[in-house]
Amino acid sequence: MLSATITGIEIELQHKIDNKTKPPGALGRLEEIALQVGQIQQTLHPVLRNPQIVVFAGDHGIAAGGLVNPYPQAVTAQMVLNFIRGGAAINVFCRQHGLGLTVVDAGVNFDFGELPEAGLVHAKIGYGTRNYLEGDAMSMEEAHRAISAGGKIIQRLFDAGCNAIGFGEMGIGNTSAASLIMSFVTGIPVEECIGRGTGVNDEQLETKIRTLKEAFRLHLSSVAASPDHVTILQKVGGFEIAMMVGAYVAAARLKMIILVDGFIATSALLLARTLDHTVTGYCIFAHTSGERGHEKMLQYLDARPLLNLDMRLGEGTGAAMAFPILASALLFLEEMASFESAGVSGKE
Amino acid sequence: MLSATITGIEIELQHKIDNKTKPPGALGRLEEIALQVGQIQQTLHPVLRNPQIVVFAGDHGIAAGGLVNPYPQAVTAQMVLNFIRGGAAINVFCRQHGLGLTVVDAGVNFDFGELPEAGLVHAKIGYGTRNYLEGDAMSMEEAHRAISAGGKIIQRLFDAGCNAIGFGEMGIGNTSAASLIMSFVTGIPVEECIGRGTGVNDEQLETKIRTLKEAFRLHLSSVAASPDHVTILQKVGGFEIAMMVGAYVAAARLKMIILVDGFIATSALLLARTLDHTVTGYCIFAHTSGERGHEKMLQYLDARPLLNLDMRLGEGTGAAMAFPILASALLFLEEMASFESAGVSGKE
Repeated sequence: MLSATITGIEIELQHKIDNKTKPPGALGRLEEIALQVGQIQQTLHPVLRNPQIVVFAGDHGIAAGGLVNPYPQAVTAQMVLNFIRGGAAINVFCRQHGLGLTVVDAGVNFDFGELPEAGLVHAKIGYGTRNYLEGDAMSMEEAHRAISAGGKIIQRLFDAGCNAIGFGEMGIGNTSAASLIMSFVTGIPVEECIGRGTGVNDEQLETKIRTLKEAFRLHLSSVAASPDHVTILQKVGGFEIAMMVGAYVAAARLKMIILVDGFIATSALLLARTLDHTVTGYCIFAHTSGERGHEKMLQYLDARPLLNLDMRLGEGTGAAMAFPILASALLFLEEMASFESAGVSGKE
Repeated sequence: MLSATITGIEIELQHKIDNKTKPPGALGRLEEIALQVGQIQQTLHPVLRNPQIVVFAGDHGIAAGGLVNPYPQAVTAQMVLNFIRGGAAINVFCRQHGLGLTVVDAGVNFDFGELPEAGLVHAKIGYGTRNYLEGDAMSMEEAHRAISAGGKIIQRLFDAGCNAIGFGEMGIGNTSAASLIMSFVTGIPVEECIGRGTGVNDEQLETKIRTLKEAFRLHLSSVAASPDHVTILQKVGGFEIAMMVGAYVAAARLKMIILVDGFIATSALLLARTLDHTVTGYCIFAHTSGERGHEKMLQYLDARPLLNLDMRLGEGTGAAMAFPILASALLFLEEMASFESAGVSGKE
């Protein structure tokens, strides 16, 4: 809901929904989505235009040490190439649902040079962040530059006709950054914000928790009680996460529908919300990730995701999987017959 | 799982799934579905061919009195016409997902004659069931004939190339029949099996519960401790439910993938399972309906549905909404790159 006051368009939308040939409320969450999107677009005929997934990729200094991640840092760049060649899960789901896919080098520790393949947005802030166990992950200038770059990418997609978008990410070690961000924003103890990421075992999980508790303590003293989003990004963030923060804020200002993906994408939303609290009004929460901590994030945001398929892959795959549900909500509103037009009797 | 023993194809499928460019298990439920469907089709390349929704429509004698339903019985026929003209929710979702739609007159209290519109299968067993407060809903002969007709419809769709199917229903008053069936099969007290159906209010719900407790008592004495599916159908069933029982059994025998819809469709599955316990091995549970009682049915079947969107419309809408998720599971298995082919490093 964008507003607590009932607007004219809200009444008209609800009337249209209730006159469809079905018992009131029988389409459940689809009816809520139709109402939300109709209000955002201020129309009884909301539509999806050129829906897109944007995957932001960036490396994390912490990952080089292998303390928080079982996969080597090189996998970030390898997966970016996989995205460009069309072989990753997000490629499959974007093709399936007719979604555009934009891949952004937000700060991968690899020189993609002049790739022969199309489709990589070169927006590198740096060759990975610095290790936040040894200082700040990035400078304040880098954080601002990344946020700004994220906003510009969304503005370009909007200018090209896109009105619905989901953000994904790739970055070995970025569940760790997301856990620290979550703890700084929500006040939930850091150990409750940490999960297995891309499959660490019990022993590795213990090391991950010990490492991130140390990182949290290290930076806690230098941040305020309610640190702003730029400070948190500077201390423990990632370039891809910072870019997503700017992307959320821009998308909301452009009144785009935002499909929110999993743990890392939601951590960026937590930061975007401290910058602009209206952002969540444009959000549809796609899924509950299998990553521990995501459910608590969602509770903090009072969000009810559409899907729970135990997915924990990132890349925007959860957001992509939710697009057909969003489309169903707009299609029933547009295409279903009314009781009058179909000659169907109402309640006695 | 079709079998507790690990088969060759299961090992090969799991190997293929684990070699995709993602951490093991990161696609959650999609990986389970890929494994299940690959085993059913006994191939590393499972596919969906001509997926279909079949909506069985039938009237219930109990509905004429208005004791269990706020909508008049005439709505069943009106909605069948709505299906044929393409104006119902199930039409919208079938068009969206490229699903074929077959509408079956299993026993509607209306003479559709020679409809100018295409697409109605004339399989009428009778003009609605008899009121089970005054005797049996149908004869044993009618129950057998309906089960057989359901099987034949599925055989024809299979012969036309369909290998994945979902069953929906339309029938004013049929949540009541489903509640009674659920109670007879599971032993759960009838009052715990009753929900609001298509939107009864508190007072109407009390009347519905009182009425169905009476119906249950009336027929309990004349059925055995573990009544068979035909006896239950005869006492309190519906023609559309009986036809679905035959449809489930036929679909499983033909090794089709079955998407299980909501409360009424699952009640028919409970009966089909007493006839052939292997049926559930071919089932993917599409969604948890908003109808009270469905969750308990699913627990009884040890089923974890894919979606929970608070939908309670019937018509097969939940099954239709789950088809893209099933498709995603087969597409990732077919199209995603492997670690080797993409040059991506595994765990260190």
